[in-house]
Amino acid sequence: MAGFDASTLSRRVLEGDRRALAQAITLIESSRAEDRRTAKLLLEELVPHSGKSFRLGISGVPGVGKSTFIESLGNYLIDAGHKVAVLAVDPSSAISGGSILGDKTRMERLSQRTEAFIRPSPAGETLGGVARRTRETMLLAEAAGFDIVLVETVGVGQSETTVSQMTDMFLLMLLPAGGDELQGIKRGIVELADMILVNKADGALALTAEKSVTDYRKALMFMHPHAADWEVPVQAFSALNGDQTASAWETVEKFRQSRMEKGLIEGNRASQAKNWMWNEIRNGLVERLRDQPEVAAQVAELEQAVTENRLSPTTAADELMDIFVGK
Amino acid sequence: MAGFDASTLSRRVLEGDRRALAQAITLIESSRAEDRRTAKLLLEELVPHSGKSFRLGISGVPGVGKSTFIESLGNYLIDAGHKVAVLAVDPSSAISGGSILGDKTRMERLSQRTEAFIRPSPAGETLGGVARRTRETMLLAEAAGFDIVLVETVGVGQSETTVSQMTDMFLLMLLPAGGDELQGIKRGIVELADMILVNKADGALALTAEKSVTDYRKALMFMHPHAADWEVPVQAFSALNGDQTASAWETVEKFRQSRMEKGLIEGNRASQAKNWMWNEIRNGLVERLRDQPEVAAQVAELEQAVTENRLSPTTAADELMDIFVGK
Repeated sequence: MAGFDASTLSRRVLEGDRRALAQAITLIESSRAEDRRTAKLLLEELVPHSGKSFRLGISGVPGVGKSTFIESLGNYLIDAGHKVAVLAVDPSSAISGGSILGDKTRMERLSQRTEAFIRPSPAGETLGGVARRTRETMLLAEAAGFDIVLVETVGVGQSETTVSQMTDMFLLMLLPAGGDELQGIKRGIVELADMILVNKADGALALTAEKSVTDYRKALMFMHPHAADWEVPVQAFSALNGDQTASAWETVEKFRQSRMEKGLIEGNRASQAKNWMWNEIRNGLVERLRDQPEVAAQVAELEQAVTENRLSPTTAADELMDIFVGK
Repeated sequence: MAGFDASTLSRRVLEGDRRALAQAITLIESSRAEDRRTAKLLLEELVPHSGKSFRLGISGVPGVGKSTFIESLGNYLIDAGHKVAVLAVDPSSAISGGSILGDKTRMERLSQRTEAFIRPSPAGETLGGVARRTRETMLLAEAAGFDIVLVETVGVGQSETTVSQMTDMFLLMLLPAGGDELQGIKRGIVELADMILVNKADGALALTAEKSVTDYRKALMFMHPHAADWEVPVQAFSALNGDQTASAWETVEKFRQSRMEKGLIEGNRASQAKNWMWNEIRNGLVERLRDQPEVAAQVAELEQAVTENRLSPTTAADELMDIFVGK
């Protein structure tokens, strides 16, 4: 990646050059020291031009039909004049080698349109690392003129929280399910949702889906809403029924409007950015501590002393921090 | 607290001197620099003598009857020859000014017995701070010869996870409830439980409690057990029925035995201690960074730039960390 000039690249990104955008993202995902310096300059130039999109997080377990929904929604939005970026946060992409959205054939039409930009989940050892790169990719896509960003994630562990912390709205997709299985939803994740779609509401599952919509609505009454002034809508959805894409987007627009009128989107983004900075510091400091040779030389011994109950964890932590700051 | 001599105090704690134990805890809870130095020495001397107890975490919403259960269990254990320490982690103790276990009259008999040591939740601005002090208090109580430690917490937010990470077993107390209310349990917290007691299984609620036991058992089938080789028992409990205390403790003993035979208690404690050390580092480093005058002088400006979208949070985080490590 040598020879990249940050200002040329950023100018081309701002002009909406897709190849430049792809190169900029590759630069941001690189861990080479030289690339990281260029990436930093690039971000400094482009971040002030970011933010002019609506950011929609979309979550659901594997098989719920996220790709089909995004294919349908993306095409609908482009037909309506939007430019749509589709990104993903997949915490397992490091382990599995693959990643969600990796298989673009699942979004066959969308991936061929020039108004769409689809980027699979970056690899990374930690969810924090994956999220950072996705978030920065989002900023670049915004600077390149994409005015709708869809961030997909799978329903495992912490990734929903992470995605909800980088988007303006969080849409949860669920499968039609019977009563008992309702208990299988993670309450914390449902509480993040600003909107719920019960997918595959067609064919043999049509009736179950309608029943699920009622059940989920009922379940939501026992939960704390994510946004105090917004009653979380639960809708059935079928990819076979084109009208439902329009109806789903209408609900998204209603949320967006009500939040914008109250100035809540800007406020939410400001606090998200601040939290992100402190999270970066929290993780970054531990990384820097671990990487310091003087600390690294002591870690194993202190961990051993702590696990063998010879030393209090607090004392060991203080010692390592004292070494790190050079006391 | 001036004039405390760490070795005299630690000798007296090891002899089981209750007043010395109380003084040692006060020292550990103090934030004065001089006290913290003495506390550190004290911990260094006492930590190697800690660990010889069984640590039972007990959680449940306010009103579930934790105090009554602990009063009953504590007396039962002392009658059987044990020495019982009762501690608490209450994340709200800083805000409310009060704290759980603060009102010892709720454990009237237990609080008067010399074989019991009851200590309310320490104050603290963060859950991490409260937990650190409680955990260190637990080590001191163990060094003083208490062989059963009960750590109580209320069912709010993160405190259950924190308590489960400092104990050998986690007991969740629930109220008898109808079907719909079952959905009100936080799944993540139920998944921490090694044992569930449905309390107040008497009088008008007796039948509901029996029904709840069945429902909770069924709900558990859809969850991931905390310990892979242990089927989480669900029992009804009534403080009015003395036999049920013995029966509840029998279940605890069964768990303890099965874990001890497999060497799992030591292994679990070793990884808890290591995690604790890294958590201390994670939180401690951010504290040290915030406290550094050079950093403090820049924080407001960088936060502002980040919230106004002039600077990427990653760049701002790097700048603050560079200042901190003196680059």
